[in-house]
Amino acid sequence: MKEDIQKTIPLPTIRRMPNYLRVTADFLEEGKEWISTTDFSEILGLKPIQVRKDLAFTGLAGKPRLGFEVSLLIKAINDVLGWNNRTDAILVGAGALGSAILGFKGFAEHGLNIVAAFDANPALVGSTIHGKTVFSLDKLDNLVERMGITMGVITVPEAVGQETADRMIKAGIRGIWNFSPVTLRVPDDIIVQREDLSSGLAVLSVKLSENRI
Amino acid sequence: MKEDIQKTIPLPTIRRMPNYLRVTADFLEEGKEWISTTDFSEILGLKPIQVRKDLAFTGLAGKPRLGFEVSLLIKAINDVLGWNNRTDAILVGAGALGSAILGFKGFAEHGLNIVAAFDANPALVGSTIHGKTVFSLDKLDNLVERMGITMGVITVPEAVGQETADRMIKAGIRGIWNFSPVTLRVPDDIIVQREDLSSGLAVLSVKLSENRI
Repeated sequence: MKEDIQKTIPLPTIRRMPNYLRVTADFLEEGKEWISTTDFSEILGLKPIQVRKDLAFTGLAGKPRLGFEVSLLIKAINDVLGWNNRTDAILVGAGALGSAILGFKGFAEHGLNIVAAFDANPALVGSTIHGKTVFSLDKLDNLVERMGITMGVITVPEAVGQETADRMIKAGIRGIWNFSPVTLRVPDDIIVQREDLSSGLAVLSVKLSENRI
Repeated sequence: MKEDIQKTIPLPTIRRMPNYLRVTADFLEEGKEWISTTDFSEILGLKPIQVRKDLAFTGLAGKPRLGFEVSLLIKAINDVLGWNNRTDAILVGAGALGSAILGFKGFAEHGLNIVAAFDANPALVGSTIHGKTVFSLDKLDNLVERMGITMGVITVPEAVGQETADRMIKAGIRGIWNFSPVTLRVPDDIIVQREDLSSGLAVLSVKLSENRI
């Protein structure tokens, strides 16, 4: 049943779920017991109908006048996102962006556990970044296989993005979080989530030009 | 006329524009003169009808059998995104994420020119990161006003995200690119583009769980 619900969640709804989670966690911190569609609508700037549709995917029913019970909603959203389970991952590319990601504490809260980093640069190999050891690339296959790791984070320069993905997939990685500005070509059963900072800049640039600032 | 066209571009189309641009630039580098809807469709995994709809916003008409002229399309997309113009910006928060952004060469190609960084940490003030000087926060107002800067990049920790935005807006910033995991409350005439790494992780987590890896 749960699996069926998950499969029908639209991507934009999934993308908004972390926002609902954060707002609800803020309410919990402030000692509030209930949170309503109107609260979400005002804080996140979404239409109430959108909030209602999105939160329906949690399987929780809100109560009239009160809304959702804060603690139940947090658990339900984490369940939808699979963030109550831990996922082990590796990261390839321990430069500035890779270091920033290794140091981002938010991921651990969401169940993402980066167990090791890899880099082609001998000067970085053997060092420790935010508590994670940087290994040489030729250790990747063995570590991924031995630990049964299925998620890989790519933070290498554009020129080596594809070969990094190929290497990960050959080692057994099934899901790739790609921060490299390259469109990866992967087999159909591999999942790629791309983070493209240029697309955020595109939105901001167009909106600013519309306002003729 | 151009302004009218811009106002009607849907957000998802704007977000895809940098992808079209990158693929087209690859074609230019490979010495190709023409690029077709089919090329985009195959490389980016989009439906041909989607590609056609998106590229219609450039105002260019493709030629039957040939598609778009590569050099014209690059210029047209850059025009749509305003990336042929230079936008000066400041960045607040020169930690790991801020450093990664200061070092990302892609932004300069898209007209974003970060002129200075600011940080509350005295140990960072006066240092140079990827060629940009880090100033103390109390220099922000004066520099923004003096240089007429309208765009600000926020890469500070969550706890100080809102006060950083308030400070920027007071100094004259009109557009904010927010990498801090906080929902900013700003006046109606201020544009905020939020980059939320958690939403990318959400998508990947849900897709991976659907595949039951």
